[in-house]
Amino acid sequence: MFITFEGIEGCGKSTQAKLLYDWFLKKGKEAILTREPGGTPAAEEIRNFILRPRKETFPAFAELCLYMAARGFHVENLIKPALKKGIWVVCDRFVDSTVAYQGYGRGINVELIEKLNEEATGNLKPDLTFLIDVPVEIGFSRIKRRDLDRMEQEEMDFHERVRQGFLRIAEKNSERVIVIDGTKKVDEIFDEILNTLKKRGNINAL
Amino acid sequence: MFITFEGIEGCGKSTQAKLLYDWFLKKGKEAILTREPGGTPAAEEIRNFILRPRKETFPAFAELCLYMAARGFHVENLIKPALKKGIWVVCDRFVDSTVAYQGYGRGINVELIEKLNEEATGNLKPDLTFLIDVPVEIGFSRIKRRDLDRMEQEEMDFHERVRQGFLRIAEKNSERVIVIDGTKKVDEIFDEILNTLKKRGNINAL
Repeated sequence: MFITFEGIEGCGKSTQAKLLYDWFLKKGKEAILTREPGGTPAAEEIRNFILRPRKETFPAFAELCLYMAARGFHVENLIKPALKKGIWVVCDRFVDSTVAYQGYGRGINVELIEKLNEEATGNLKPDLTFLIDVPVEIGFSRIKRRDLDRMEQEEMDFHERVRQGFLRIAEKNSERVIVIDGTKKVDEIFDEILNTLKKRGNINAL
Repeated sequence: MFITFEGIEGCGKSTQAKLLYDWFLKKGKEAILTREPGGTPAAEEIRNFILRPRKETFPAFAELCLYMAARGFHVENLIKPALKKGIWVVCDRFVDSTVAYQGYGRGINVELIEKLNEEATGNLKPDLTFLIDVPVEIGFSRIKRRDLDRMEQEEMDFHERVRQGFLRIAEKNSERVIVIDGTKKVDEIFDEILNTLKKRGNINAL
């Protein structure tokens, strides 16, 4: 079972991904917590390359290609082997982030990104995706205290397009993507996540 | 004017690219000699990432994406600005290498690669491409003395597919790609290159 968390910066998805991972461990289940871009040594190298501010112009299409390359390493070397062994995989960002940021955010053709996502993952899709939705101002106010990386430094309206992009993805994939109000309290959100998993029969046995 | 050199490992293209670059300088022309993957700090970083042997499985599609990312940086930050200033650009490998290696060599869909090449370059094509063609055994015998990188370590039949791929690209793009017999002597090949440039009216003014 492969579960992903999506949303804009500061939405709280990393916190929820960690809570779910800890919950699996507490229940005695084998699970891994991973993230994109990253998750394997090669993919983490690419992550550092992407997020480091640099002097050269960073073309949007080059950025897209780097996310796809990192995803290829991650799926092939970590996610697929884990799923094959029956291990729960919890992942902070996955294919939807690329559609939201590079597609809706930067304006690269969404169908092309979907095609590349298919190629990079060998058609692997998450079984379930939680989109933690918050208004951009709230996400921003939460990350103000951290050092901003290159993606976080983007303009407010870029992040607004990304948020709306995520919501459209959820609409188009309503079977897979569950939208959760990220302005609620951390444990309220986590209860909603567990209830969804129970309702869908994914954690009956736990 | 943008001139690229293509061919399998050990074909002699880097030698010829350097000779042409030196010839431009000798004639008092502004020129740059560059290469792919690479050519800018970011693209050279990606080059090192690609060519370094590593323990993780290196998915063919991730490799393709990395070549495209490096190309994006190279075109945007070096090639296009130089061409805009009227500088001659001589490049060791470009879009055709990706079609030959990742397409014909690794079996990734050739049309998809052509589409990605268009996106990565913003539709920039070389004005002229020299394909230095040699049988695989001859190319290999020439590079034996060097330390082999990850691409050079591939099997003989992979490189045979790549060679045949280059020849097909030349057939399909006969206006742009000139095939030159790379088993001839270095200065005979270079004479052919200069004669081609003269015949096509590209270096009349020099």
